[in-house]
Amino acid sequence: MTASSSPPTAVTEQARTLIEPELRTAVAGLDPHLGRAIGYHLGWCRPDGTPTRGGGGKAIRPALTLLAATSVGATADTALPGAAAVELVHNFTLIHDDMMDGDELRRRRPTVWKTFGAATAILAGDALQTLAFTTLARHDSPHAPRATRVLARSMTELVSGQTQDLAFVRRPWQGPGAVTIPEYRSMAAGKSGSLLGCAAELGAVLGGAPHRTAAAFGRAGRHFGLAFQCVDDIIGIWGDPKETGKPVLADIREGKKTLPVLAALAAPVPAAAELADLLTTPRADEAELRRAAALIEKAGGRRFAERESQHHLERGLACLAEADTGGTARDPLLALIDYLGRRTS
Amino acid sequence: MTASSSPPTAVTEQARTLIEPELRTAVAGLDPHLGRAIGYHLGWCRPDGTPTRGGGGKAIRPALTLLAATSVGATADTALPGAAAVELVHNFTLIHDDMMDGDELRRRRPTVWKTFGAATAILAGDALQTLAFTTLARHDSPHAPRATRVLARSMTELVSGQTQDLAFVRRPWQGPGAVTIPEYRSMAAGKSGSLLGCAAELGAVLGGAPHRTAAAFGRAGRHFGLAFQCVDDIIGIWGDPKETGKPVLADIREGKKTLPVLAALAAPVPAAAELADLLTTPRADEAELRRAAALIEKAGGRRFAERESQHHLERGLACLAEADTGGTARDPLLALIDYLGRRTS
Repeated sequence: MTASSSPPTAVTEQARTLIEPELRTAVAGLDPHLGRAIGYHLGWCRPDGTPTRGGGGKAIRPALTLLAATSVGATADTALPGAAAVELVHNFTLIHDDMMDGDELRRRRPTVWKTFGAATAILAGDALQTLAFTTLARHDSPHAPRATRVLARSMTELVSGQTQDLAFVRRPWQGPGAVTIPEYRSMAAGKSGSLLGCAAELGAVLGGAPHRTAAAFGRAGRHFGLAFQCVDDIIGIWGDPKETGKPVLADIREGKKTLPVLAALAAPVPAAAELADLLTTPRADEAELRRAAALIEKAGGRRFAERESQHHLERGLACLAEADTGGTARDPLLALIDYLGRRTS
Repeated sequence: MTASSSPPTAVTEQARTLIEPELRTAVAGLDPHLGRAIGYHLGWCRPDGTPTRGGGGKAIRPALTLLAATSVGATADTALPGAAAVELVHNFTLIHDDMMDGDELRRRRPTVWKTFGAATAILAGDALQTLAFTTLARHDSPHAPRATRVLARSMTELVSGQTQDLAFVRRPWQGPGAVTIPEYRSMAAGKSGSLLGCAAELGAVLGGAPHRTAAAFGRAGRHFGLAFQCVDDIIGIWGDPKETGKPVLADIREGKKTLPVLAALAAPVPAAAELADLLTTPRADEAELRRAAALIEKAGGRRFAERESQHHLERGLACLAEADTGGTARDPLLALIDYLGRRTS
């Protein structure tokens, strides 16, 4: 399963290599302490600033931006500011989300708030959001104003999606006030759909595609983002900590209302009722968390999320077919999309 | 002293009235919970969403933007997106700073993090930053790309300035590692100079001023921002809680390295040594805090900050004279600047 669990290396590695100078230029303009915290998060250095190698993210979003640009017949270079901007935004949300969720590990290392404290984590996220807009605005592409609008709109949705997600944690598992699957979908559209939609649309916009084509790329990216979130939910319960770099059963432990759990609770099977009892047990131990994961699977929650992911991948591909660009990036784009549905970390 | 302690009402009230629809449109696009937290902060509603009147900020920055536009011969309308953007950024920084500083009161009411919790405060700030860029990007002024670059640059400086300010709290009052006055000035340039500089420059840019004129407005605004920070430091120690809406002696209590304190400590007078002893006393009581304030005044710290403020107001006015726009807004602009140096809340 190595082939399906690693991102299509050539494409994401190329994206990471291409955007790194943009990211380093952006971060270099910040206060050194803030630059160190961000460099640590991005895998460039230790907390004390000593350079390190590796440990950054998978560069899926920038890869999508660059492939969208080449799909519409432009060079990857044209879309570099967009690719860097989505990566900066992605990392902004990771740093703030880790803090809000109280997550202590990210990419197998202590998170920024855990390492540098809450104030630095807040400021590092704030700075990354600013740098995303700075990076787009610095380049004088004639398409920069349109690109800025696309980025701004998607960030509004992103923040609203994260707000809904946090509100879900406080809501009950069952009865009045319980989170519904349509509510989950709306949250996921904001939290994950918007940024992958933005990544794809920015590539097309900066590549000079007409509005209709760029919008189709945006819709495709949103579906890929929703598929991505379904897979994330599956990994959040059944992922291997050695691969994910996060604690086992993390999402159940944190009481996250993810799709597999919501689908399992809604299923008309005895396992659903048993699961509901277990989830409302205060301070469940490790064995109970494992039992909950088994019940979610038994009640069909995992299969439901897998199907939903597959559905969004197909819808996304249909949007791309509709855009009908005849560009040169078809194969690597399909490989990236295939990976989104199959990844295990 | 009523005339000098209230902002020049006509100008700031007009600015507030003009930008409010822009702000409301921006906030309406957010998740309702987030919109309520921001509406509460802006004085539009109670925490439960019930509408209220008043309680928002003084609208100094948007007033400066609108006056800069009319100074360069444009209508105030031209600069509305810029005026709204700086007000959104200002409120983004207030919400995040209150949380990082642990401040519980703002404009006489509990702060956002205190009322809605840390996660909502983080997201509300994030959303306000996004909305600032959204507001600028939504309008199709031919000057929008330049305006976006001005805003992005100033936000980078702002976040770096706040990082320095927070780092100051952890540094000693005296000896190796103590904060110097040049370091304070660099921090204040980022934390306060950048946004008032941005406010003035955005008005000139959106008003269609040539680069040289807009840059002169930017420099003027930076000086006004530095003057503003000096006055803020004075109010932070000697301000009347009834006027400021914050606890008495707030900055000394929090160990803030503000200009009056740093200047007092650097003065070659016996009061400076006595002050140093007092500031390093762990858990000083109210009487000791009052004694510290008296010593800062005695060692010349307050006078130093007043002079520095005056110096920046004069430098700022010289920059405006250099811009030599011959526009129509001279009198209200001077009234606003005069207020910046004299305000008491």
